[in-house]
Amino acid sequence: MARIVMKFGGTSMAGIERIRNVAQRVKHEVDAGNEVAVVVSAMAGETDRLVNFCREASSLYDTREYDVVVAAGEQVTSGLLAITLEALGVRARSWLGWQLPIRTNDAHASARIETIDTEALIAAMAGGQVAVIPGFQGMAGDGRVTTLGRGGSDTSAVAVAAAVKADRCDIYTDVDGVYTTDPRIVPRARKLKKVTYEEMLELASVGAKVLQTRSVGLAMKEKVRVQVLSSFEDPTDDELPGTMIVGDDEIEENEMERQRITGIALDKNEAKITLTDVPDRPGAVASIFGPLADANINVDVIVQNIAHETGSTDVTFTVPGAELARAIDALEKAKNTIGYAELKHDTKICKVSIVGVGMRSHAGVASTMFKALADRGINIQAIATSEIKVSVLIEEDYAELAVRVLHTAYGLDGPEPLEA
Amino acid sequence: MARIVMKFGGTSMAGIERIRNVAQRVKHEVDAGNEVAVVVSAMAGETDRLVNFCREASSLYDTREYDVVVAAGEQVTSGLLAITLEALGVRARSWLGWQLPIRTNDAHASARIETIDTEALIAAMAGGQVAVIPGFQGMAGDGRVTTLGRGGSDTSAVAVAAAVKADRCDIYTDVDGVYTTDPRIVPRARKLKKVTYEEMLELASVGAKVLQTRSVGLAMKEKVRVQVLSSFEDPTDDELPGTMIVGDDEIEENEMERQRITGIALDKNEAKITLTDVPDRPGAVASIFGPLADANINVDVIVQNIAHETGSTDVTFTVPGAELARAIDALEKAKNTIGYAELKHDTKICKVSIVGVGMRSHAGVASTMFKALADRGINIQAIATSEIKVSVLIEEDYAELAVRVLHTAYGLDGPEPLEA
Repeated sequence: MARIVMKFGGTSMAGIERIRNVAQRVKHEVDAGNEVAVVVSAMAGETDRLVNFCREASSLYDTREYDVVVAAGEQVTSGLLAITLEALGVRARSWLGWQLPIRTNDAHASARIETIDTEALIAAMAGGQVAVIPGFQGMAGDGRVTTLGRGGSDTSAVAVAAAVKADRCDIYTDVDGVYTTDPRIVPRARKLKKVTYEEMLELASVGAKVLQTRSVGLAMKEKVRVQVLSSFEDPTDDELPGTMIVGDDEIEENEMERQRITGIALDKNEAKITLTDVPDRPGAVASIFGPLADANINVDVIVQNIAHETGSTDVTFTVPGAELARAIDALEKAKNTIGYAELKHDTKICKVSIVGVGMRSHAGVASTMFKALADRGINIQAIATSEIKVSVLIEEDYAELAVRVLHTAYGLDGPEPLEA
Repeated sequence: MARIVMKFGGTSMAGIERIRNVAQRVKHEVDAGNEVAVVVSAMAGETDRLVNFCREASSLYDTREYDVVVAAGEQVTSGLLAITLEALGVRARSWLGWQLPIRTNDAHASARIETIDTEALIAAMAGGQVAVIPGFQGMAGDGRVTTLGRGGSDTSAVAVAAAVKADRCDIYTDVDGVYTTDPRIVPRARKLKKVTYEEMLELASVGAKVLQTRSVGLAMKEKVRVQVLSSFEDPTDDELPGTMIVGDDEIEENEMERQRITGIALDKNEAKITLTDVPDRPGAVASIFGPLADANINVDVIVQNIAHETGSTDVTFTVPGAELARAIDALEKAKNTIGYAELKHDTKICKVSIVGVGMRSHAGVASTMFKALADRGINIQAIATSEIKVSVLIEEDYAELAVRVLHTAYGLDGPEPLEA
């Protein structure tokens, strides 16, 4: 017997037929003697519909009211799943964010979970009742509805798993696990049986959108064992082949078997900005990134070259493509303070990253990357590294080629897939 | 300055353009210096959509979870109206059923409001903030979501008006007031400036579906002045022509001006059941209506003729057409207990009623009805009377003719309407 949290995304909840399939999967776990809490997303498309209503009502909507509107989507699916479970003879009830409650801070539309009251929840689960919890929502200290930001249901699931000390948090999605890279780009990509939290963080944050980044960070912090599974398999199958996200310690033992690189990630949604002839003096960098931070714009890869002989330097960095217009606006307003000559931008770029904890104990990993790209004539515009990741910016047209080249270079190719 | 509650139905809330029109109307009242609370329905069609999800999930759904699902519709519109008001520069916030809270009993799916906590609400309104309240929903004693049954938002509005001691409760609907009869049947029907609670109750319960019956009963009990208005008029018009629903005392003074009959109502949704040769002994009637009450079937017109010479009697009554099958089932199971010879039923009937408080002080009102119908050869199958109403059952084919005949007979016809 185990205590498990199951999470189902919007595609799995899109319509009663699919909800019935979800209920079958939940029943399978209950029949196996497990205590179960289920965290659900809104039906696919519903959150978009509600968000669009808010935008149509006002371009500057009050996020406190936005939260009231969009939280309704998960409220609906949680009630429907409870009904469907009961129709299968499984005792169940819904627990809305404010009923548990799931307490968050008051950063409406992107709130963070602070605590989850679990007394009633654990009692219900221990009594054999499935707890159905709408993801994405919570309650601020003043009793108003909050939501966690898009994709927040993953975070809800991990937070509930941590709060009830679950043995496992199973995330059912429309993919069946985490792959060495996007199989649509590399058909010979292989599914990973295990991936570490840190690797998953890097893979998620650079575009392998299986899980919300925040949920992985939370799982790492709270040591929640997360498993990514497909919601479209036979719901009574005992051995669903998914990917387990685990701590470093569970990997180290058989490190020998692991590749130095775990996966290749691609992100096409970045835009590159270069400020030319920035004065090479203390405070220059702060004067650039201060205004961007004030505008809540995330800056990613940053490259600053050594100073020209003139005593000035060029600074290049990337921002999310959707934020480019706002970033340019903020930088143009600060032009005099920063003192740059020209602002250039380019959206025809992409970021390709190699990720792997094995990188730490192997030298020469990055040089393999640079050589493999150079051999194919792919020009690297900028490089950024972290302990377990190397990212390069390249021209967008080369994106898929670069991913394929690197996938092969690091020995990640699996057998040729059979024709479907 | 007045404190008013405004209520907008589903048609008024169907889409952002219409919600913007609602917001304009609310702003008009705020600009006039009034304290305002607004009660809203879900977007037209939304509640049906959510109810259908529940039915699809299980024919025997748990009403506690049904309430969680369907309450989402009003949650969405309350948030959207708050956003839209703020976009017009009107300070506003939504107060969900559980936030105020609106406390109800635990009769899920058809709960009754018990109390409404108004401290925070009145403080907010007095501070110039419009309170937007989702209709139809509340919270049971155990903290679970409840709903009031279809059309319940009218009742929410009247209950809020009573709780905050509002000067007026304005119900905006897709009709512009209460008419002497359905204008689709009688083009010369006239809009009533005033109607008493009791008249409205009789008009509503016999098919003039402007307001939910329960809301009128509550308004009468709590002495809430209710006004029925059109939500499609110019939102800045100061003198919307609607119908005010008032107490008898506000009518009596100028009773002279009133017709003896206020309106003619038609109900085509009844079915007639006749049990023949029921033993004429004490307890016979109880043995009929007991099983129907147990099955939660509302019985309306009841006619029991004097006993035949054989010592038995025929009992005729009506039930809602939708309940006919269940009623027949209950009565057939009780056949031996009741001891009737035969069960006959007829759905091709309708109920036509004349309604008016003036009836009390005028003799001969009913005989005008019977004579007018007889003159046109319309056969009366059964008659039922109350203090301010006379209802007859007639063959359904004659429904519209009977309404027109009676509308003319009681002098209710207005001027011929102009061609649109």
